[in-house]
Amino acid sequence: MRIGVDYYPEHWDRSLWEQDAQLMKETGVKLVRLAEFAWSRLEPEEGKFQFEWLDDAIELFHQKGIEVVLGTPTCTPPNWLVEKHPDVLPVDAQLHPRYPGVRGHRCYNSPSLHRYTKIIVDKLARRYANHPAVIGWQTDNEFGLNECNCENCNEQFRAWVRAKYGDLETVNREWGTVVWSGEYSRWSQVTTPLGGSPHLNPSYQLDYYRFQIDSCVVFQQVQLEILREQCPNQFVTHNIWSYPTMLDYYKVCEPLDFASLDYYPNTNPDKADTNLYSGALTLDLTRGIKNKNFWIMETMSGPPGCWFPMWRTPQPGFIRAFSWQSISRGADTVVHFRWRSATIGAEQFWHGLIDHSNVPGRRFREFAQLCREVNKLSDQLDGTELRNDVALLHSHEQYIAFRIQPQVEGMDYFDNLKVYHRALTKLGAGVDVKNTTDSLDGYKLVVAPSLYLLDEEMAAKLHAFAEAGGTLVLTHRTGVKNMNNVCWMEPLPGPLAKTAGIQVEEYDPIGTHVHTLTMNDDKSYTCTQWCDVIKPVTAETIAAYADDFFAGKPAVTVHPVGSGKVIYIGTQPEEAFFVDLFQALMEESGIQRFKDLPDGVQISVRQKRNEQYLFVLNLSKEVKTVEIGANYKSMLTDEWLEPVVELAPYSVDIVQYTAG
Amino acid sequence: MRIGVDYYPEHWDRSLWEQDAQLMKETGVKLVRLAEFAWSRLEPEEGKFQFEWLDDAIELFHQKGIEVVLGTPTCTPPNWLVEKHPDVLPVDAQLHPRYPGVRGHRCYNSPSLHRYTKIIVDKLARRYANHPAVIGWQTDNEFGLNECNCENCNEQFRAWVRAKYGDLETVNREWGTVVWSGEYSRWSQVTTPLGGSPHLNPSYQLDYYRFQIDSCVVFQQVQLEILREQCPNQFVTHNIWSYPTMLDYYKVCEPLDFASLDYYPNTNPDKADTNLYSGALTLDLTRGIKNKNFWIMETMSGPPGCWFPMWRTPQPGFIRAFSWQSISRGADTVVHFRWRSATIGAEQFWHGLIDHSNVPGRRFREFAQLCREVNKLSDQLDGTELRNDVALLHSHEQYIAFRIQPQVEGMDYFDNLKVYHRALTKLGAGVDVKNTTDSLDGYKLVVAPSLYLLDEEMAAKLHAFAEAGGTLVLTHRTGVKNMNNVCWMEPLPGPLAKTAGIQVEEYDPIGTHVHTLTMNDDKSYTCTQWCDVIKPVTAETIAAYADDFFAGKPAVTVHPVGSGKVIYIGTQPEEAFFVDLFQALMEESGIQRFKDLPDGVQISVRQKRNEQYLFVLNLSKEVKTVEIGANYKSMLTDEWLEPVVELAPYSVDIVQYTAG
Amino acid sequence: MRIGVDYYPEHWDRSLWEQDAQLMKETGVKLVRLAEFAWSRLEPEEGKFQFEWLDDAIELFHQKGIEVVLGTPTCTPPNWLVEKHPDVLPVDAQLHPRYPGVRGHRCYNSPSLHRYTKIIVDKLARRYANHPAVIGWQTDNEFGLNECNCENCNEQFRAWVRAKYGDLETVNREWGTVVWSGEYSRWSQVTTPLGGSPHLNPSYQLDYYRFQIDSCVVFQQVQLEILREQCPNQFVTHNIWSYPTMLDYYKVCEPLDFASLDYYPNTNPDKADTNLYSGALTLDLTRGIKNKNFWIMETMSGPPGCWFPMWRTPQPGFIRAFSWQSISRGADTVVHFRWRSATIGAEQFWHGLIDHSNVPGRRFREFAQLCREVNKLSDQLDGTELRNDVALLHSHEQYIAFRIQPQVEGMDYFDNLKVYHRALTKLGAGVDVKNTTDSLDGYKLVVAPSLYLLDEEMAAKLHAFAEAGGTLVLTHRTGVKNMNNVCWMEPLPGPLAKTAGIQVEEYDPIGTHVHTLTMNDDKSYTCTQWCDVIKPVTAETIAAYADDFFAGKPAVTVHPVGSGKVIYIGTQPEEAFFVDLFQALMEESGIQRFKDLPDGVQISVRQKRNEQYLFVLNLSKEVKTVEIGANYKSMLTDEWLEPVVELAPYSVDIVQYTAG
Repeated sequence: MRIGVDYYPEHWDRSLWEQDAQLMKETGVKLVRLAEFAWSRLEPEEGKFQFEWLDDAIELFHQKGIEVVLGTPTCTPPNWLVEKHPDVLPVDAQLHPRYPGVRGHRCYNSPSLHRYTKIIVDKLARRYANHPAVIGWQTDNEFGLNECNCENCNEQFRAWVRAKYGDLETVNREWGTVVWSGEYSRWSQVTTPLGGSPHLNPSYQLDYYRFQIDSCVVFQQVQLEILREQCPNQFVTHNIWSYPTMLDYYKVCEPLDFASLDYYPNTNPDKADTNLYSGALTLDLTRGIKNKNFWIMETMSGPPGCWFPMWRTPQPGFIRAFSWQSISRGADTVVHFRWRSATIGAEQFWHGLIDHSNVPGRRFREFAQLCREVNKLSDQLDGTELRNDVALLHSHEQYIAFRIQPQVEGMDYFDNLKVYHRALTKLGAGVDVKNTTDSLDGYKLVVAPSLYLLDEEMAAKLHAFAEAGGTLVLTHRTGVKNMNNVCWMEPLPGPLAKTAGIQVEEYDPIGTHVHTLTMNDDKSYTCTQWCDVIKPVTAETIAAYADDFFAGKPAVTVHPVGSGKVIYIGTQPEEAFFVDLFQALMEESGIQRFKDLPDGVQISVRQKRNEQYLFVLNLSKEVKTVEIGANYKSMLTDEWLEPVVELAPYSVDIVQYTAG
Repeated sequence: MRIGVDYYPEHWDRSLWEQDAQLMKETGVKLVRLAEFAWSRLEPEEGKFQFEWLDDAIELFHQKGIEVVLGTPTCTPPNWLVEKHPDVLPVDAQLHPRYPGVRGHRCYNSPSLHRYTKIIVDKLARRYANHPAVIGWQTDNEFGLNECNCENCNEQFRAWVRAKYGDLETVNREWGTVVWSGEYSRWSQVTTPLGGSPHLNPSYQLDYYRFQIDSCVVFQQVQLEILREQCPNQFVTHNIWSYPTMLDYYKVCEPLDFASLDYYPNTNPDKADTNLYSGALTLDLTRGIKNKNFWIMETMSGPPGCWFPMWRTPQPGFIRAFSWQSISRGADTVVHFRWRSATIGAEQFWHGLIDHSNVPGRRFREFAQLCREVNKLSDQLDGTELRNDVALLHSHEQYIAFRIQPQVEGMDYFDNLKVYHRALTKLGAGVDVKNTTDSLDGYKLVVAPSLYLLDEEMAAKLHAFAEAGGTLVLTHRTGVKNMNNVCWMEPLPGPLAKTAGIQVEEYDPIGTHVHTLTMNDDKSYTCTQWCDVIKPVTAETIAAYADDFFAGKPAVTVHPVGSGKVIYIGTQPEEAFFVDLFQALMEESGIQRFKDLPDGVQISVRQKRNEQYLFVLNLSKEVKTVEIGANYKSMLTDEWLEPVVELAPYSVDIVQYTAG
Repeated sequence: MRIGVDYYPEHWDRSLWEQDAQLMKETGVKLVRLAEFAWSRLEPEEGKFQFEWLDDAIELFHQKGIEVVLGTPTCTPPNWLVEKHPDVLPVDAQLHPRYPGVRGHRCYNSPSLHRYTKIIVDKLARRYANHPAVIGWQTDNEFGLNECNCENCNEQFRAWVRAKYGDLETVNREWGTVVWSGEYSRWSQVTTPLGGSPHLNPSYQLDYYRFQIDSCVVFQQVQLEILREQCPNQFVTHNIWSYPTMLDYYKVCEPLDFASLDYYPNTNPDKADTNLYSGALTLDLTRGIKNKNFWIMETMSGPPGCWFPMWRTPQPGFIRAFSWQSISRGADTVVHFRWRSATIGAEQFWHGLIDHSNVPGRRFREFAQLCREVNKLSDQLDGTELRNDVALLHSHEQYIAFRIQPQVEGMDYFDNLKVYHRALTKLGAGVDVKNTTDSLDGYKLVVAPSLYLLDEEMAAKLHAFAEAGGTLVLTHRTGVKNMNNVCWMEPLPGPLAKTAGIQVEEYDPIGTHVHTLTMNDDKSYTCTQWCDVIKPVTAETIAAYADDFFAGKPAVTVHPVGSGKVIYIGTQPEEAFFVDLFQALMEESGIQRFKDLPDGVQISVRQKRNEQYLFVLNLSKEVKTVEIGANYKSMLTDEWLEPVVELAPYSVDIVQYTAG
């Protein structure tokens, strides 16, 4: 467990390297990430390589006892490459290229990109495979989904479709192209979504996005094959950008050793109440990418800003507290972006730990404290991990499908996930956020929101989970479509109707109109977005609508399945509903949680063998009081804490914990 | 008079056809529309035709006693056609093609489109001209104005301009191209509006839109010539989309047997107060397209939604009530879109009568009731029509001209029409909404809003109307331009200044600022948008402005002309002003109307010979009470109604009526 | 001193020319501007010239005693030129040409444009160089910055960069292209900002805009060389459009005889409170363009409107009052746009003095009064100018740099300038608004806001100003970058840190969040946008922050430098702060001003030798009372004024003044 920084030696006069490395060493920095965008510096002309500067930089850090992660520079093809091989550039739906000058100007399907990627990655891999300071690699940078329409993408999309469906007859049937005379009679008619109209066939669109996801995976694979062969003793990871995204991070990270996240918690005080919970979701999601601990490869060091207006500066304690939040939820290394604010280029105002002036200030001092603390606790925390009883299911494909066809004003798949996760987190429960395709073994409560795309296989898995004693929560917009984005011709929730014990008679997309829900005990909540009017078949009603023409009709039901049960929620109630529901369900299931947490306080446990470490975080701007139930010694200050701890704003404490 | 449904056999497994047709028969459906988008299914490859499936479908409906309307599939050229002849595609102002994959990807001026259109329409026409079930044709689907810039459009636009003006000297003079050195010295310089700047010459823009209107008319004519020759015993119509639009529906429908409308009343409760009146205007407009009864070719069956978020579901009674509203205002057939919600393609969430599950529900049951009612009353209502004393003038050209040069913030030509029509409708008056070029014979009151483009001929017609005893209402922005969109060099309202007996001294485009108007009797109304400061010449003032530097100046005048009179309204007062004004004018003119209607209730009369049928509609969500003046027997329930009827939300009643 | 009108004989039937000219003469119009857009009428085909119409028009005005300014028509290349040489057209970042049909469709770097410009300007210059009526020339019309990406721009941009930096190594270093691998290895890789991403390198972007500024200057120079040679006895000016703008008006006007402004004060009553002050800034800025008196080449004659909705009509008195405002702040000639509203073309609703009807009305009568007044005072006012003690610095380059990288939500460089200028104007101070590169000699107070781009030379000039006894006001975002848009690696305010006697420890971009500032005497003001947390080194604190984690930290400091002092304001306080601060500073510096002005009243003094003329303007809609301190005789009415004058809305008075 360690703290690192992102450092770009190529951005700075050589005279600064030694003093920077020395200050890192004194500060307790244990790792630097180098070289991710440095293609033009490493290969300034085709076939002319220039590694000496990087050799020197690595050697310097090595001498200071600082480990190195190297990025492959493929996110930024140099000008000579683009000039010689313009097919490197992605092309938008109007056939306009994404010109060089920024970054990400590379189509994953460009043969030229593949060719030159192999050369530079091979050179780097061979050169640094055995350097004692270099412990691993980051591929490219923040992969995103390219909505590219270049000729190579067109050709390869056709090949992808042909590989999936075999013949055009099947394509026409599975996509339902007969609508609006879209049937293909020759393969050449199958193109990427030229023109980019949102009115295009949704089955086709979904497959196009899947193709682009696969294109990214294949492009990374080109690099991975080299790195795996040349560098068997170094890890490979990728720094993913945040959520939600149309790229499938599960697929991207599948062949990697672990996932890494670029984590920039929002500093805006107007969003302070929800942001710390969104951050927790982001971290839990990242832990779920490979169902294991992960790295933070970039995190907040100062106010971000570039071509967009700067954010607020992080409040005192913010940088430290959110770094600890990352660790508390599974980060094993936290790398701060960046050592010093750039004086050149487009990211001048994406501030580093040290300002342009090169005078370390408040933020740097806080970072130095963090380094000391992490270095102190590193041995004890190494090898610890999180174990939870509750899982929340997430899927990039569902997100894509909802992007293609937004269901109703005000409904956002990912925003709804935030509500469920926030309710669970406020209740003090640890939550694993997992791919919908993951195993559910070992969980007691699974929240599976809006499984809009649903096949029999996934339905069977969920059914089995409940049957074996689990509590399963389903919501509106479940079972609408098959995996080809074609509607099921059966009552909603489609393949899960029997599992839920209900049929949806009809629905009203109420959008931003506010309706009311009444529980059997007369307690009321507001709801918005959607109202499924439910006909219970074998389920029982636990809440009904209070207004409109479907007043009195069931809105939420429970259905015993085997030794477990299934809750179906046909609308989108306010957060308080989920807090109350999840609290009841967790009590019934005997799920452990930290009760009575004040808003803004998060608690997590990392454990190994019989050791448990409790992280108590106040991520708010206010003083909070929390009961931890016993006298513990702070691992940070070595002072004894009262059973009821008063937590300063943005404060952190960690104790070795005895559950009870 | 009958109820039909839109049905797409090609979207469904053959196993469903028979059960669908059978259920239609049992439900009382009398008509289906088929094939409008089925080009790729009818002609899967060039010259390879496949009509058997359509033969079978038509035969099936024939067996069930259901009549068929066939659409020509030209709105959706198939992929093979586009691939072979890319000139089919329209091209925007930046020369980007509108790619296939959606619909409407066809330039009306494409020679290839014309060629292949002739072939497919000819095949269809010959095959089904004499089928006993096939009663008529719908051309294409929802024609719109194409703002195309392809080479064919450029060439034909030049030809159109040359045909209109003869030589470039005349073009330069009539368009005023000397401004900003836009004079043409060669014909090749005359292009479509490349770049699409809104700053382009307004005379030129107006003629370009006229050219595109004519291009649509010519494209339809290609089909019509074939249909008229092959199918002399079948009608031809077109399903127009809603208003306002830059396409000239009068021109499109001129050669057709009757107009058809696709009518989707807004289900949003936030717009409930105005929507039922906008709907009435839409229907009255459609009746005015050919000054006769019309069809609804598509109407609301459930929540619409697609690439945009879904609307609210129609409340109970909504579907039935708005179908009856259509009939009450001149629809002779109402076709519901669509039988069942599509499980495939981009319109999956544009819901049909039956949901994806294929389980008929609440909406279907309401539809079934509607079928029973219409079938019961069909014989009596057949041949009835509306006769009104009041006309409201409308013009697509005025709408286009105002789009080219929006006059002032908050002023929308069509929204203003809604206000005038709503005031008349709330007063219980029947209104014909007519093209400004139509005859005014037989009307007592004509409201002629914002005749911005105005020639001496139309001015003379309006003058003659008043002279012969009519009451004519004119408004601000009348007589600004000649028909070439060039300003008249004379005091406003230009060619109508003598008819109105006034001159506009100056004006203030007040936009969204609210001013006040005071009547001679001191009653006040607010006004917005525009203030003409009027100098009465031979007119008398009936209202003056109450504020600003023109306080005390005339705002509304009346001018006796022959045995009639002309009202000029120099501003845009609130709705209440129009209610009061029109009420007074109708009383003076002895125009019959239904008095004291509560908001949300609409009454219409259809009549033939000496029979009159009164339609009483409550199109609101609230219970309403209305006095119908006598004891009538409900034609729907055969029960006797009280003279004062209480109307449930979205309820309808129809009685045979004796005007009293 | 005189009043003129913009007149387009080519827009009107010849029959109107004589009566128009005669009415101008009777009205007191002394000057017309002709021909600025008339290229197609002057050269209807290549090499075919047609000057007779212009000869006749000029001769007609000459006979009426009206002087003529001729525009070169290069803003509107005719269709034949564009057709023959499409390289004339600018090309946007997606390579779409700006098509002809509007105006400004000319790339400054087009060789064809240069060639044909030389021909037409030479023809015009030779023909009218010695015409007694023609007193001067206006180049083109309202030059703007072309963000062109045509091949010529690409080539010439490369040449410009090469001329500036010599070799690619220097380019790469000075622009910091190493970030994101943007290093150039061949000159051909240096292009204009294709794609137009805002994420592009800010140093590169700034140089690209500088290049386009220079391109405009060079294009004008092509014309100037001809005009200077052919027309040594006629002046040359250019009519600049308003502020802010990315074009550098200082550079454009440097070779001209004087600057001209197109001045359209906003008629919207909702903006009445600030608009009269923005107008004052616009005029003071224009006077500062060449630090001398200027012309108004176009001004408000009626409601503007075109492709956008019309504005409100000017209130009675508005046209006259704002014309006098122009004169009071340095305009020597005011030309009204336009004589009569166009009946043709895109500017039909950009109203002239006379409406389309050709019936002179209220606005014309007010204009006629203005003509009489100006003609009456002309001799006395001729040769007068303004002399001020206060300077406000402005820079197009700073504006561009902030456009490239907006610092924080709610911060707009130019809007902040408005606040400073408004505060000074409300205090009754005369302000010169000057280029940051201008000399500061003779000023007592200099306000130098946000000198974001700053070099040692400018810093030295400002330091010297203070040292010599001046009062210098600096603000946040000063000294951030060098002139290549690269951050200084030293504490803020960079090269001015020692002058300000402070270092900025850190900053918080608070944006739209409202914070509080407390003065040493406990008076409070709100502040927004930005908070520099200041460490005074040799300065003293005069205000501190009242909230957030930097509560108590210095926000505003004062630093004695030589016999002067430097104020640094690290945040953006509300206007009241600046009123109080500037009032105190002016009192300390002994700067004369007109005290106790009510809002909406502006006072200026024009002087020559020992004569002073006081302009007292009420530019508001309310009656205002102002104390002018003595009994003066109104130069307009020849009546004696009380020492306390009551000013009607939009009223003006002028007196010969004895400073007291």
